[in-house]
Amino acid sequence: MTDAPAPKAPDASRRSERSRRAILDAALELVGETGFAKLTIEAIAARAGVGKQTIYRWWPSKAAVLFEACVPEGLDPASIELPDTGDITADLKTVLRATVDDLNDQRLDAPTRALTAETANDPELGRALTEKVLEPQLQAYVRRLRAAQEAGQVDPDADLRIALELLVGPLFHRWQTRTLPLTHAYADTVVDLALRGMAPRHP
Amino acid sequence: MTDAPAPKAPDASRRSERSRRAILDAALELVGETGFAKLTIEAIAARAGVGKQTIYRWWPSKAAVLFEACVPEGLDPASIELPDTGDITADLKTVLRATVDDLNDQRLDAPTRALTAETANDPELGRALTEKVLEPQLQAYVRRLRAAQEAGQVDPDADLRIALELLVGPLFHRWQTRTLPLTHAYADTVVDLALRGMAPRHP
Repeated sequence: MTDAPAPKAPDASRRSERSRRAILDAALELVGETGFAKLTIEAIAARAGVGKQTIYRWWPSKAAVLFEACVPEGLDPASIELPDTGDITADLKTVLRATVDDLNDQRLDAPTRALTAETANDPELGRALTEKVLEPQLQAYVRRLRAAQEAGQVDPDADLRIALELLVGPLFHRWQTRTLPLTHAYADTVVDLALRGMAPRHP
Repeated sequence: MTDAPAPKAPDASRRSERSRRAILDAALELVGETGFAKLTIEAIAARAGVGKQTIYRWWPSKAAVLFEACVPEGLDPASIELPDTGDITADLKTVLRATVDDLNDQRLDAPTRALTAETANDPELGRALTEKVLEPQLQAYVRRLRAAQEAGQVDPDADLRIALELLVGPLFHRWQTRTLPLTHAYADTVVDLALRGMAPRHP
């Protein structure tokens, strides 16, 4: 006799997934309402309609819950690729405009700021965010810029791991410090300036 | 009869200044030891050897104390000028190397991170930091780049308020996210790339 799957497994797993999603959504909503300092596991559990032990079984801290809530569902940052139409200027404008839209998304604004802020108190969380979320995305810039280098659109001597920071650094700085509005026009100008900075040198 | 100054005024003012400095130093030390969340006015008062009412008389919050502690003594950010030797590349490397040194200064690291983090919880503090400390410094970049524009070293069409963010944004991003070390060599490469990005166009 072959083993049939336990009849209740699919339901239990659906229920688990529903709880998990409810907890992540509750954490995102609450941090927007109360800020990170006043966010509690109890409040997340109450809003999600689960017991707080359910949360502690899956996550060690409120920061860990938010961390997972902020990483888009099903996304593996290591497998991100930037678009490659062959036109590096157009492709980077597409990517940076989308980044501007993400940074201006009010639903993500409070949790992203809360997590970024919490890295000052919790360097281990900061290292995890950088290693698992940020650096893999930066490596996707390196790969796209290397393809542009091979196509003769970027100076073969440019240090791509630094050059990419002239693209992402300005957006992050303006978002974090709220000096001036983050717009598509701003993203386009940053791309134009940064790409001129790493353009091939004509003898 | 002319009024003589009250005989005790100079002493009282010296004592005040000594207390003020002791409070600012205590706040800087303590935030490095405990982090911002656990920093209290009581602890600052105890470390500084003053009563907590003395602190409350001068500052509305622990964030306000730290804010003042982080602005270099006697500095008016609005009057900052970047060096101008006539060589924009050399001058910007001088400035960005000094910024790297400041960001790597362990005495300032914890309070600067704490204040930056607190702007996520307290947008009013963020606005004050940006208006009173950050933006005046950025305007000094605009003035220095405008002089370089007039000297034919920078594209007359470059938007200088955006171009300067390709200088400061990458340093801030690397400091905040701790992706890779902040070094003088990094500052130099950022200056070279950014200045090529805003160089005059040769027909």
